[in-house]
Amino acid sequence: MLKENERIDDLEYKGLKIIQNEKGFRFGIDSVLLSDFAKNIKTGSNVVDIGTGSGIISLLLCKKTSLSKIYGIEIQKEVAEMAQRSVELNGLEEKMEVLNVNIKDVFDVLEKNKFDVVVTNPPYKKANTGLKSEETSNLISRHEVECTLEDIAKQSYLLLKDKGEFYMVHRAERLVDILCTLRKNKLEPKVIRFVHSKQNDKPNLILIKSVKNAKEFLKIEKPLIVYKDSGEYTDEILKIYNKM
Amino acid sequence: MLKENERIDDLEYKGLKIIQNEKGFRFGIDSVLLSDFAKNIKTGSNVVDIGTGSGIISLLLCKKTSLSKIYGIEIQKEVAEMAQRSVELNGLEEKMEVLNVNIKDVFDVLEKNKFDVVVTNPPYKKANTGLKSEETSNLISRHEVECTLEDIAKQSYLLLKDKGEFYMVHRAERLVDILCTLRKNKLEPKVIRFVHSKQNDKPNLILIKSVKNAKEFLKIEKPLIVYKDSGEYTDEILKIYNKM
Repeated sequence: MLKENERIDDLEYKGLKIIQNEKGFRFGIDSVLLSDFAKNIKTGSNVVDIGTGSGIISLLLCKKTSLSKIYGIEIQKEVAEMAQRSVELNGLEEKMEVLNVNIKDVFDVLEKNKFDVVVTNPPYKKANTGLKSEETSNLISRHEVECTLEDIAKQSYLLLKDKGEFYMVHRAERLVDILCTLRKNKLEPKVIRFVHSKQNDKPNLILIKSVKNAKEFLKIEKPLIVYKDSGEYTDEILKIYNKM
Repeated sequence: MLKENERIDDLEYKGLKIIQNEKGFRFGIDSVLLSDFAKNIKTGSNVVDIGTGSGIISLLLCKKTSLSKIYGIEIQKEVAEMAQRSVELNGLEEKMEVLNVNIKDVFDVLEKNKFDVVVTNPPYKKANTGLKSEETSNLISRHEVECTLEDIAKQSYLLLKDKGEFYMVHRAERLVDILCTLRKNKLEPKVIRFVHSKQNDKPNLILIKSVKNAKEFLKIEKPLIVYKDSGEYTDEILKIYNKM
């Protein structure tokens, strides 16, 4: 089940385990926060996870929600295969499937206007801003080499049913790009939550929910703070990690 | 010097006084925060204050900065005359002038591509969302009856020199409208600061600095908190009000 440099991590959440490559891109708190932000999706939802990577968000959503089916789209063949092995490791074959396809070609394998929800933790940085030495696999995960925000918005609009929901986590500094791209593509931003490392820090992440073809009306939620001033996790983060 | 229902308020800042109408729209903390946010404009700047109202922002900027000249644009004749009397009350005739003109007609009285800075505390609400009973003067101050965000962005772009600075305070809930309208009009958002009533509250105001024809790169500053949990002003607010 494991290939070279791979290991199994226990997610300490309803028995979930995940395979990750020690030399590859490993999941961070952003994916955990996004699955929590999206946890109120409707029972029976059909979901697409764009850029699933190790499969972390899809795996968590299988256990946090009563979704019907989630497809994890992953462009990198080896990463997609590893995620599919995590599906099998957790016996989630009926709920989750990993599709090794470029999001631009997603309609070769999935239907348009069919999905209730799209979730995505996309590459955060613009193309050509990475270090030249960076490994290709990490470059694709972190930078908009293969897939831009515009690609994601366009394809998500087409995947979703009318009034379907789009959930994304991204860098707060990309705020203008994010909001303008989503509105332009008729994924109207409805809920935003900024994530701050500590209470007095600037926000570093943004959690955003858009709704396809919705009216303009934005709700900004109270800040999500990760650490207390003492350096310990806040109670809200401990709850999200299921530790209290 | 005073007309019916008018009074003189002491701003408790470098001797500034202001005339306000007790039945009209009186300035709030948003104007005070905006003047502080814009206080680092360059010595000798030529400035336009769109929708100056009582003149509060322009008066404060005359004392907080070394600007050369500030024009307060005010569409309402009686409000503009009252603001001009505040200019005289403070002996600021050489630095500040109130122009009673619709922002759409501003180039009847001011030149294009000439200004270093635009500041504005515009109407926050969309037209047709006000109570029918609201007084006309308040309606114009609060709602986009006479002037929309789009009008302000368009005219500010034309007023400003290349790389000129645009400072605005607005409702946080209008975030998507604000960012998309500014970028569309080539006033690229460069700095944002959210204002929260208390530390754990959602942000209610946004302070934003855009630069004409600038590259895309946004800095989000740490939150500006108005009240401590005890209900007292925070130290930062006391400093802005010159109370410590």
